[in-house]
Formats: sequence, structure tokens, C-alpha cells
Amino acid sequence: MGSVLGVDVGGTNIRLAVVDSRGNIGERQQHEARLSQLDVEDAAQSTERLLDTLEGAIHPLLEQHGEIGGIGIGFPGFFDNQTGCMLSSPNIPSLSNVPLAEQLGKRLKQTVRVQNDASLAALGEFSFGVGVGLSSLLHLTLGTGIGGGLVINKQLYTGDGGMAMEIGHLRVAPQDRLCGCGAKGCMETWASASAVAERFAAISGIQTDAREICRLADSGNAHALTVLHDAGRILGRGIAETVKLLDTRQVSISGGLTGAWGYFFPALQQELDNSLLPPLVGKVSVQCSRLGDDAGILGAATLALEHLQTS
Amino acid sequence: MGSVLGVDVGGTNIRLAVVDSRGNIGERQQHEARLSQLDVEDAAQSTERLLDTLEGAIHPLLEQHGEIGGIGIGFPGFFDNQTGCMLSSPNIPSLSNVPLAEQLGKRLKQTVRVQNDASLAALGEFSFGVGVGLSSLLHLTLGTGIGGGLVINKQLYTGDGGMAMEIGHLRVAPQDRLCGCGAKGCMETWASASAVAERFAAISGIQTDAREICRLADSGNAHALTVLHDAGRILGRGIAETVKLLDTRQVSISGGLTGAWGYFFPALQQELDNSLLPPLVGKVSVQCSRLGDDAGILGAATLALEHLQTS
Repeated sequence: MGSVLGVDVGGTNIRLAVVDSRGNIGERQQHEARLSQLDVEDAAQSTERLLDTLEGAIHPLLEQHGEIGGIGIGFPGFFDNQTGCMLSSPNIPSLSNVPLAEQLGKRLKQTVRVQNDASLAALGEFSFGVGVGLSSLLHLTLGTGIGGGLVINKQLYTGDGGMAMEIGHLRVAPQDRLCGCGAKGCMETWASASAVAERFAAISGIQTDAREICRLADSGNAHALTVLHDAGRILGRGIAETVKLLDTRQVSISGGLTGAWGYFFPALQQELDNSLLPPLVGKVSVQCSRLGDDAGILGAATLALEHLQTS
Repeated sequence: MGSVLGVDVGGTNIRLAVVDSRGNIGERQQHEARLSQLDVEDAAQSTERLLDTLEGAIHPLLEQHGEIGGIGIGFPGFFDNQTGCMLSSPNIPSLSNVPLAEQLGKRLKQTVRVQNDASLAALGEFSFGVGVGLSSLLHLTLGTGIGGGLVINKQLYTGDGGMAMEIGHLRVAPQDRLCGCGAKGCMETWASASAVAERFAAISGIQTDAREICRLADSGNAHALTVLHDAGRILGRGIAETVKLLDTRQVSISGGLTGAWGYFFPALQQELDNSLLPPLVGKVSVQCSRLGDDAGILGAATLALEHLQTS
């Protein structure tokens, strides 16, 4: 079977790669593209700009590789399971009900499938990472927010309206910080990579990013250790609540904080054990992603490969 | 297609009925049986006593109806999806890994299928109640605790280890009351039928049950109105957390508190609207069960009917 293109669209960058059926990544490219700048009042115009941007990023790689069997795209938005339409995107508020895959497919003369980016990170990790050989996987991506994705019975689960696994908004954190959703207490206000940086700045007075905070933790910085420990504790609590509902036994985590795994994981594990129902203590395994930043690209590729297999 | 037996095993009673393929209930019976009294130190002996009790309850109705195509049983326990074995039961702690369906089937010379009671209440409501025509349903049963059940893509979802939808243990309540699970803040410590009765007793000094509290609310009793309002608020919060993860748009509720629907539902709806992510506000419908106490029997019957259809 031929190769496909896996495309991971973030808020500021489009990353894409040629991927074969075994999940091996060939040539890869990265394009800067700020999604929020594509948003204008007129929805049709926003759509045009988005399509232009995606086409501009994807077309060159497609041209170079004649033998591409399909394109999968992870996008920060919510998708209708029946129609495949993008219902909405937090990054481009003017858009609603856009047949993104269909329109892009026409432009590129290729089969295009698009799905939520956090869901595709889960699908990638399931297909080629921590989830290999399993039938279900809960995956968290710690970035600006916290993305969640779920595979059950070997299928991606996105819910009735494509908005499932908004795990970052579980209210398991102290209620001191306002979330982008308008509520307080959301898990991502304490445990996303951005939240860790913001909490570090608040207590240390130093503005820096999650990567640098990991380095500071390495050198024993007490504030860095505190905010990472706190993030672990809140993640453990949120994962426990999720497992109470889903009884998923395998969890993987990727994203900006995983460089500090050794500093937040012990607190995560301890809080998880304290919070799970007694029969489940010790039966839920939380692992660091094996794919890292490539989970999204490989999940997008999986979507395209699935289409190849069923067509 | 012939009729089946639907059996709903509770902590104190076994209720069973003949059910046809359209969900019409024919003859029904009820037997008193305290599950906790079947529990003895020796696991084999506990199993024998349980099998004797179930056989004793089911056999007479089976004898009367020659044309029974199968038996479905809802039982307060957790079941392995692969083997069908009952992994454990909170009511009979000595039991573990019991092939309940298989052993009972041999005794009764019938095909027997057993599944978690709260899950089967969801399946019943999905097949013959609020869920008719839908593809997914979240169902809550407000009783001694709060049972949760989930149907997605028209299939019962019970998780990797059969313990999914322990929704009563979501920590969305004030942390003033200790739950049976050992934690504080569980939804069922404020919003189960038993919890409402206990909270009412604590603030009014009057020991009574949920049914009587509903009557007191009818007559304007302020304490009754308060505990029911509080229960609604906590339920709204727990349902919102669940919808953040599952994006299920239809929820049904059955059990001992539904008689007071008018007193707790407005608070539930208000808290749900306050707690959902903005794009989902107004898109989640919470309804009172159409089947009431029969959801469990009809879910058990559905399990048996599914087997008939696939065999």
C-alpha cells in the first residue's frame, strides 16, 4: 500500500509529512500559519483564506511525491461524524459548518479526511505508539490547553457532536484561575504547559516557557518543582475522574510538559491512586507518549490510511 | 420472535418479567432476596447460594412459560467483556471471577446473559424509553447510590474492565460527607435518593425516605425543597462533567428521586447550563425516564433479545 500525507495544523504552524502504511515518517515540512489571522467577519472569506493556506502548505509536498494515496488532517476544530463538516473552530470563530475535507479535496484532487487535532493525536499514539496491541487508549496533549482523545474498541470516539474529550475543562483544579472557557477550576488552568508557565511566573516573577521550567527543575529550582508537582497532582485527579466514567486502563501523555516527566509524574501517580475507586488502584497505566510531537501527524496519516484500506 | 425473561436483581429484591420482542411486559414476579446475606467466607459456597437463589426465583416463571427464548439478568456487579465472567460484586464481596451466566444457564437449561444492573437500565431506556430512535444515551439511576449506564453507537459501553460509568463517584459535591467508596465529594453523597433522605434527616431531624420527602416538598416544606434543589444542582454539575468527556446529547434519569422531578430539575438544568462548555449550552436534553422501575427489566430483556437475534 502507498504512502499518505499526515498534516497537523496547530494555532501557529502547519506540520506535515509523508507517512507509509507502517507509520514510518519520510520527508517532512513545516509552515508558519497563524490561524487566528485567517479569521475575518465574512465566513466565506475566512473559509477561502483557510483553504488557500492549507492548499499552499500541502500542494508542494504533494507535487514532489506522485504516489500519495490520501491526505489526513488534524485541525483544531469540531467535526460532524455524519457529514464530516467542520462545525466550529475556536481559532477561527467566523467559521461554522464548513465542508473542509470536501472543498480541500477538490482543490488538491485527492481524498482528504479531517478530524479534531487532539483526537488524531490519540489515534496516532494508539496506532503507532503506546497503544500498539491494545483496543483502547486515553491520550492527553499538554500544550496551550489540554487536548484529550479517546480510542475505544479500536475506533476513535468523538461523541454525538464531535466535541467529546474536552478533558482540559474537567473542574478538578483550585478555582483561582479563569479558564478560556469562562469557568474556574478547569484542569488546564493548572496543568497545561501554558498554565505551568503562568503559575511559575506568578510565584517566581520570571516569565519563561515550560521547556525552561523543566531545565530549572533539573537545577533544583523550588518554584519550578512546585508548579510541576501541582500540575501532576491535578492531572492525576482529572485522569481518575475520566477513568471512573470510561474505565480505560491505558493512558498516554504528550506535549510540552513531558520533558519534565520525572518531576510531575510521581505526584500524578500518587493522586491517581488516591482518587481512583479502590478496585481500580494499580490497574491504570499512565505512560509518556512514544511519538512525542509526531502523534498528531501519525494520527492524521492513520485517518488517511484507514480510508485507503476501506476504499 | 419469541419472548424472553428480563431479570433485575437488586440488593433486596429480584424482579422478573416475561418480555416480548417489542418490549411489552407480560407476567411479572418479585422475590425478596437479600444479596448480602448470601455472602459467606467460602467463595464456592457463596456462589452456590447465589445460584440457588437466582434459580429459585427464575425457575417457576420459566416453567409456566414454555416458549422462553432466553434470559437476561441485570446484577449489581462488574463483568468481563470477553469472558462474561462476573469479576466482583459490591454486595457479595467473597465472589470473584464467577462464570455466573454459564453456570446459571446449565442449571436452567437456557441461554443466560448477565450484565451490570445500571448498564442494563441504560440499555432498557435506550431500547424502549427515552432513547428510541437515538444512537446514544447516558442514563442515571438515583437509588441507594447513583448508577450510570452508557449506550454509544447503539451499543452498551462498559469499558476495558466492565467498570465504566461509575458516575456517582464523580467528585462534584461539597466534601462534607463520606462516600461508601472511601472518598468525600462524590456526587452520590448529595444526589442519590438515600443521600437526599440522609441530608433531610440531618437538617430537619426527621428520618424518612425519598418518597416522603417528595410529598413534603409538595406541601412546601423548606428543608425538603432545599435538599432536592441541592441534589439537582449537584446532578447538573456531574452531568456537565460527563458531557465534557462524552459529548452525549441525551440524558435520562430514573429511580427513587424522579417523583420529585419538578423540585430538582430546574436546579439541575440551571447548573448544567452554567457548567457546560459554551457551544454545548442548550444542546443537551435531560429527561425523566419513560420506563421508571422497569428500565432494568427491559434492559435485561434487550440483552436476551439481542442474543436471540444474533444466534
